[in-house]
Amino acid sequence: MSVETEVRDAAVRARVAAAELATMTRRAKDGALRAMADALQAASAEALAANAVDLGRGRADGMAEALLDRLALSEQRITAMADGLRELAALPDPVGVVVRGDTLPNGLEVRQIRVPLGVVGIVYEARPNVTVDAAGITLKSGNAVLLRGSASAYESNRVLVAVLAEAAAKAGMPEHAIQLLPADRESVAQLMRARGLVDVIIPRGGAGLIEHVVTSSVVPVIETGVGNCHVYVDADADLEMAVVITLNAKTQRPSVCNAAETLLVHRRVADGFLPLVLPALDEAGVRLHADPETARAAELAGVETVPAVEADWATEYLSAELAVRVVESLDDAVAHIRRWGTGHTEAIVTGSQAAARRFAALVDSAAVMVNASTRFTDGAELGFGAEIGISTQKLHARGPMGLQELTSTKFVITGDGQVRG
Amino acid sequence: MSVETEVRDAAVRARVAAAELATMTRRAKDGALRAMADALQAASAEALAANAVDLGRGRADGMAEALLDRLALSEQRITAMADGLRELAALPDPVGVVVRGDTLPNGLEVRQIRVPLGVVGIVYEARPNVTVDAAGITLKSGNAVLLRGSASAYESNRVLVAVLAEAAAKAGMPEHAIQLLPADRESVAQLMRARGLVDVIIPRGGAGLIEHVVTSSVVPVIETGVGNCHVYVDADADLEMAVVITLNAKTQRPSVCNAAETLLVHRRVADGFLPLVLPALDEAGVRLHADPETARAAELAGVETVPAVEADWATEYLSAELAVRVVESLDDAVAHIRRWGTGHTEAIVTGSQAAARRFAALVDSAAVMVNASTRFTDGAELGFGAEIGISTQKLHARGPMGLQELTSTKFVITGDGQVRG
Repeated sequence: MSVETEVRDAAVRARVAAAELATMTRRAKDGALRAMADALQAASAEALAANAVDLGRGRADGMAEALLDRLALSEQRITAMADGLRELAALPDPVGVVVRGDTLPNGLEVRQIRVPLGVVGIVYEARPNVTVDAAGITLKSGNAVLLRGSASAYESNRVLVAVLAEAAAKAGMPEHAIQLLPADRESVAQLMRARGLVDVIIPRGGAGLIEHVVTSSVVPVIETGVGNCHVYVDADADLEMAVVITLNAKTQRPSVCNAAETLLVHRRVADGFLPLVLPALDEAGVRLHADPETARAAELAGVETVPAVEADWATEYLSAELAVRVVESLDDAVAHIRRWGTGHTEAIVTGSQAAARRFAALVDSAAVMVNASTRFTDGAELGFGAEIGISTQKLHARGPMGLQELTSTKFVITGDGQVRG
Repeated sequence: MSVETEVRDAAVRARVAAAELATMTRRAKDGALRAMADALQAASAEALAANAVDLGRGRADGMAEALLDRLALSEQRITAMADGLRELAALPDPVGVVVRGDTLPNGLEVRQIRVPLGVVGIVYEARPNVTVDAAGITLKSGNAVLLRGSASAYESNRVLVAVLAEAAAKAGMPEHAIQLLPADRESVAQLMRARGLVDVIIPRGGAGLIEHVVTSSVVPVIETGVGNCHVYVDADADLEMAVVITLNAKTQRPSVCNAAETLLVHRRVADGFLPLVLPALDEAGVRLHADPETARAAELAGVETVPAVEADWATEYLSAELAVRVVESLDDAVAHIRRWGTGHTEAIVTGSQAAARRFAALVDSAAVMVNASTRFTDGAELGFGAEIGISTQKLHARGPMGLQELTSTKFVITGDGQVRG
């Protein structure tokens, strides 16, 4: 069977499953999630064996250590994935919530009710935990899912999806609620053409993958993840606090989208702040891409830097590197962010209420932090429970996407014979 | 200047205007809307003169009477458009509303706040009132707008946009908040490529236009308007009520998207219901496309019909025509709707609570009516105020789209130095 047919057939089956899933009770879905967790742990030997095949091929192909680490499963990681499913079971169900309601003058009762989106396609890279997370979150929100993981994790994903799908079906969920697509390029292309069958595609991965899906898909897409995040240290900043926030935003976990990539410093505090922050960053192993003024301060402090070029302002390093620039004013910082940012997360450190208000109003990003680390743009940190990604677009969902963001709404309008006059 | 450059320049100007518009106070925006209303009435002679040019060209080109009527302006219509702007000024501002808020265990204050989308592109057909409506709704919701009206209304639109834009600027709104794009094909193509400059495109018009934009645009799109709506008369229906609802849904205004196009009748009430409804529809001038069973009942009642073919189930007539089919059960009606519907509005007439619940749960449409006419899927009828269209997609907005649906949200998270551990 061609990949074209295979993906289309899977989408048709998912559509049928979605119609049934939409009417499942919370109790039934939560029972299935717990059964999936148990089945996953019971199948850990099988999953580890499959994962060993993926890892072996990865090593043979010269895959980088960091990627091999992301790809690797262990008993602990499988337990963590299973616990994630159990935590999902304990969260409130977004489906059926009445978003707004009214009784009209003519007696019609209007209810806008949360319903599942239907069929969700997720395209992601070599992390088997995404397979389990995504299957759980979409099931909890009443959606059927088409998982298109990376070829390098295919054996692991195949076993995980088989285990999860079987456990879900045994627990009363419709067959084909959870399906794995072939891992080749053509399957993404087919998924992107499946308008009318697939309600949304969520790409999770690098900027290249996201850009490809966003510009090629006729199925609606939610953009996630690219975060060229900024920390701006204002003229009125508490400089000690600014050092702590900068270090946390850059170094606590540099490989994630809410880590900071550029530090902007108001000229008025540059002389006081740069001699504090540059040695601290240097000591933490951060390579500094400095504008001329920062470079001078670094030299005085005995810290090595490389010159920042225009490309640095646009770069999401996702590693222990940081661009640093001195700006003339808050408005200059905002202009820099508007020019180079990706609309993910920007932080201001300031003691000025007026500056905080102005920065929050002018910066056009999913999240604005005032005196806090950029790292807080995260569903779990914000108390939203599970997260399927962080949206950097403005339609439908912006910022951390949890269960609620995987739903749509439906108006149910009830009367006793009302007609329009 | 090429159309390519012209559209791109307009989008860049709109982006700049949008940044300013986002921070305008409600008072300033409402003042501008009232000034726009006054300016529109003051310029009515100029608008009517331009409209006469469009009408003359339309007549010379053999434009249909119905289209000429939609295109025509009059003193009354201009007053109605101005009053629409004044009503918008009186509505609540969606921008700045706190959608959710919390204080986290670590003391961080989280606020999710409504913000404008940014730049909205609207592609529509030959109705100059859409120009004024759309300019008003987008301004009220803090968005800059790129209006791409039909070539047949270009002279009218040119005058209307010039008057509105000048009045808005004089009242303190940013320049270029309201702009008209060239009316040729290439300008739509350019608009659809302006990802990063334009946040959303809303096509308003026929199915062909909407399909074209949806499948070609790399800018996110909100689908509006195609409504192949159904009325289902259940086994437990009050048949008199069913006649009244069917007539209203089909004939009260057949040219709009929430008018009914297919009537489904449960076999158990077909013998009682068809002899009531078919003559009533016939008398109202509705041409009936009947399945064999309906055709027999019609013959007995002395009502002429034409045979329904498969294409009829898929057709949005938008005129005094109706397809009629007898179904075996509620689930058959649902299956018919799933197969042929466009997800706009479906109505059930039933006295059974169980049937109403099941129909509302299984029908996957923006609106489900229980014992009420399909014609109620309308922003004004539901009390939402202004409406920019009716979304038939599941992402971002579903059903009537008002001011709130032209917004996104932003998280503003405030602390006193919090970092992640």
